[in-house]
Parts: sequence; C-alpha cells; structure tokens
Amino acid sequence: MSQAPHAPETATPQAESSSAFDLAAWNEAALARIEPALDRWLGEGAVPSRESLDAPMRYAVLDGGKRLRPLLALAARAAVAEHDGTAGPGGFDTAAMRAGCAVELIHAYSLVHDDMPCMDNDVLRRGKPTVHVRFGEAGALLAGDALQALAFEWLTPADSAIPPALQAVLCARLARAAGRDGMAGGQAIDLANVGVALDEAALRQMHSAKTGALLQASVAMGAACGAAPAQALAALERYGAALGLAFQVVDDILDVTADSATLGKTAGKDAAADKPTYVSLLGLDGARARARALHTAALAALDDSGLRGTQALAALAALVMDRSH
Amino acid sequence: MSQAPHAPETATPQAESSSAFDLAAWNEAALARIEPALDRWLGEGAVPSRESLDAPMRYAVLDGGKRLRPLLALAARAAVAEHDGTAGPGGFDTAAMRAGCAVELIHAYSLVHDDMPCMDNDVLRRGKPTVHVRFGEAGALLAGDALQALAFEWLTPADSAIPPALQAVLCARLARAAGRDGMAGGQAIDLANVGVALDEAALRQMHSAKTGALLQASVAMGAACGAAPAQALAALERYGAALGLAFQVVDDILDVTADSATLGKTAGKDAAADKPTYVSLLGLDGARARARALHTAALAALDDSGLRGTQALAALAALVMDRSH
Repeated sequence: MSQAPHAPETATPQAESSSAFDLAAWNEAALARIEPALDRWLGEGAVPSRESLDAPMRYAVLDGGKRLRPLLALAARAAVAEHDGTAGPGGFDTAAMRAGCAVELIHAYSLVHDDMPCMDNDVLRRGKPTVHVRFGEAGALLAGDALQALAFEWLTPADSAIPPALQAVLCARLARAAGRDGMAGGQAIDLANVGVALDEAALRQMHSAKTGALLQASVAMGAACGAAPAQALAALERYGAALGLAFQVVDDILDVTADSATLGKTAGKDAAADKPTYVSLLGLDGARARARALHTAALAALDDSGLRGTQALAALAALVMDRSH
Repeated sequence: MSQAPHAPETATPQAESSSAFDLAAWNEAALARIEPALDRWLGEGAVPSRESLDAPMRYAVLDGGKRLRPLLALAARAAVAEHDGTAGPGGFDTAAMRAGCAVELIHAYSLVHDDMPCMDNDVLRRGKPTVHVRFGEAGALLAGDALQALAFEWLTPADSAIPPALQAVLCARLARAAGRDGMAGGQAIDLANVGVALDEAALRQMHSAKTGALLQASVAMGAACGAAPAQALAALERYGAALGLAFQVVDDILDVTADSATLGKTAGKDAAADKPTYVSLLGLDGARARARALHTAALAALDDSGLRGTQALAALAALVMDRSH
C-alpha cells in the first residue's frame, strides 16, 4: 500500500510505517512459531495413564484458534524489543512466547467451561463439537481445570527461560486477569444479568472484565518481557484496554450480523438469551461507531507510547475491527 | 506424656520432644491465624457487582475445613525457621501463611468441582449443602475457576510480603501440584478407572497425584519459605509424600468404617461407585497396616531432615492417622 501512486507525502511516520507493515507475513511467521510451541509444550511430560486428560486438553487448545492473545503478546514484545535493543531469539522472546501461550491456555479453558450445559450449553465451537460433547462433561470440567494450572506451569519453567522476578510479574498479571477481578468475575456479572437492561457503564465493566482483561493482559505481559519505560507500558495498557473493549463490541455486532458457519459457533445466541450487548444498548450503527472510536483510541495510545516498533500492534487492532469471526 | 513416671530414659530426642509437644495448643494458635487470613484475603477488593461470584467462593472456603494444608505449610515453615533463625512475624512467616492458604483455595475449588453432578454428584460436604446445590451449577463452576486463579493471586501479592524469586518458586510448585501432573491428573485417572481393578502401583500413582501432590506441596511450599539445606528439603519432600499417601489410605478406610454424619459427607460412596481403593485392594486390616507403615516412614523422614523443630509436623502426621473424618 505504500506503493500506491497517490499516497500522501505528509503521512505521519506512524501511519507510514503502519501502512508499509505486512501483517499477513508477520502473522504467518508468528503463527509458525506459536502453533508448534503450543503443541510441544502440551506434549511435554505426557504419560499414557493421563491420556484421558491430555486428549481433551489438546483438543481444546490445538487446531482452530485465531491465537489473537499470543499474537498480541509477541507484538507487544516486538515493540519493546525495538526500544530496548534486546530483539532476537531466546531470552525475552522466549518469555513472551510463554506468556502469550499461557494466556491462550486460559482463553481455551474458559471456552471449554463456558460451553458446558450448565453455562451456555453450546455444541459447536470453531466448527467442531465442543469438548464436553466429544469427551463428556467430567472430561471437559477436568481438562479446563488442568489447562488453567498449566498456564501457570508454562510461566514458571524449571530451566532459566524466564528470570524468576519476571515469572512472578507474569503470574501476578495472569492470575488477576483470569480470576474474580477479570474473566471469571466478568462471566459472573454476565450470568447474573441475563434479561437485565444494563446501562453502558455496567456493560462496559462486565466486558472489560470478561473479555478485555485477558486481551489487555496479553499486551501487558508481552510488554513486561523487556525493559520499556513506565510511560510506554502505561500507554500499552491503554491500547490493550481499548482493543479489548473493541473486540467485544465487534463480537456483539457479529452475533447479529454473521451466520454460524462463518462464526464457527452458534450465531444469535446472545440475542436469543436476552443478554445485554452493545447492539441491544446502542443499536447496530451505534455499536459500529463505538468500535471505530475504540480503534482510534487504541492507535492514539500506540502513538503515546513513544515506541517506534508498534506496527504489528496497530495491524492487530485493524484485524480485530475487520474480523468476520 | 514426657511427665509419665515410667518414660524410658533412652527415648530419642525426636521422640521426647514430639511427645512433649502440645498439638492442640499449636493447632489452636495456628487456626486463630489461618481463619482470619482466609476471611480477610477473600474479602479484599470485594465489589457489589461481583457478589454472585464472591458468595459461592466464600461459602466454599470458609467455615468448615480442617485446614490441614495451611497447618502443614506453617508446620514446615516452623521447622525451617528454627533452623535458619528467621522465626517471628512478618517476612517468611507471612509467605508461608500465603502459601498454605493458597493451597487451601486449590483444595476448596477441587471439592466444589468434584461435587458437581457431572463428577461425583454429591449434595453434602462438611455437613452443608454442596456449592452447586446452594448456588447452582454455573455458580459452582465459576467459583471454582475463580478460586484457582485466586490462589496464584495470593502467592503474588503487590506488596513485598513475598520476595519475587520465592513467588516464582511457590507458583511453580502449586501449579504442578494442582494440574495434570498432580491433582487434576489424578482425578482423571480416577474417573477413567471406575470399575477397573488397579494393582497397587497404579492405585498409588493415582492417589499420589490426586491427593498426595497437594499435601506434599503444602509441606514443600512452607519449607521453601526460609533457608533450609537441600538435604532437609529433600527429607521433608519424603515426609510429605508419605503423609499424603497415608491420608488417602485413611480416607479409604473411613469410607467403609465411618458414617456420613461423622464424615460430614456421604460415606460408602467409593465402594458404591465401585472405585478401586486401598481397602478393596488390601482388605481393611491390610489397609490399616499400610497406613501405619506410611506413618513410620513419615516420622523417619523427619529424623532424616536434621531439623530439630519438626514437632508440629510429627504431630500432624499422628493427626492424619487418628482422624475420624
């Protein structure tokens, strides 16, 4: 796109480098590292007697996810690495990969438990039968529980892949993003408010916890793997918060505009369940305008960070906006 | 008992100090610190919008447990503190309290999930309705999930209550004890083997993971809060392993010898479910002999530790043997 004949010569450096950035290539290279890492770490220490647990764990994690959370962690790490000059394989890059994949495990376990009959009772996920349909409810419950623990195992490797003080920082952030102040808390608020007309502040609080906390943590944990100035970290937190909320607004829009085959999960279920959403609150056009405003805020936060290597983060924000599923 | 007129003059120092130790008083003093700590930390950061999650979390943890895991952590810390001379409030004692209470959260969440209809479908626990009976299945599922995350929050306090490197050690150990190589893995093996005649090696592997890993971790995590020699830590690991297995053997014995009112949960359910147990494998007398042998091994490990302040650990081993529920 930077080759376009009428590209404005007054483009800001941020916009210029952003438009020159090839997200597809970056994504492909990152995913070529993420997928094998998930597969390899899931397989570490496998023993035959535990196959009944390992099988649903692998099924829940491998083969199907967009890997947005690991991508965000690696993109944040890339932004920091360009600043602190520690780019390259090993060291902090390995730590960021572990951080992103640990968040992915939390995300995967939450989907397994969410889909269970006592929660959303969903039978389709990523175009495949959900874990409890395939492995039974007890298997799904245990696999989810074990995936949560495994996330913290991946953050605390026995080798020296992550310095101990950084392990502590990453565990602290992930626990809070996953727990009652984060994802689990948001889900509880969600459950308690089916059929209730929330105002926007309450809806925002719910979604910031339920979906946003983990996305924001992905960015923050990737950024923690390095030596960025406090101001840059604070700006990346704002980027993550805006992106996390934008993700949920787009999710609400897709729930009413997309079909199940495209989504890879049951469409229209929030509306059917009479759950409060950004679309029910703001209308479809209002929700779209809100998503655009959050996108703008996310990009502004990247500018505020003072980091120059934020192209992948900017491109991922665009991806979140434009996604079809 | 050291005042008994005919006490042998050749008693070993270990036996002498152990018999002079007043476990009831030690327990009472420890519980007077544990219960308020659980209550206070559970209440930290409570917000009204999350009451639907906080209520089942508090219900699952407070008011009823024996607190064996925190007691083991504090007893191990006490043994190490007498060695390294760092006894006293604050510092490592606070870390050990957080460690023990974090293990208690994992234990509590496992009971909540175990009791759910898709697992053991139990309606009575500690003499009260189980969490899903009281709060619904979705509430129980989410509360268990949030309790697991909260355990890692308690190990990674924002203040300096635990040095970062120790936070990393504690998170690493708890994650492995709770996850697929520990509790969750043992439960999966258990589920997969209902109605199957396991040999003793397989039964031991299952129980070492399902129940033993968390008890052993309680000891190891408490002992990590200090500066004990590696040989002492290795001996305490052996103590924890023997105690953990003894606990399960006694559990199997109680399942067939005690009534539900004494147990505070449904008696005879393992036999009714045709689960392999130490009683079904060794008979009642054989199981009792095995428990006694494990008790002896646990006390021998304490002697091997070279630590002098192991009286509370020795007394807790006796308590595990003599418990009625």
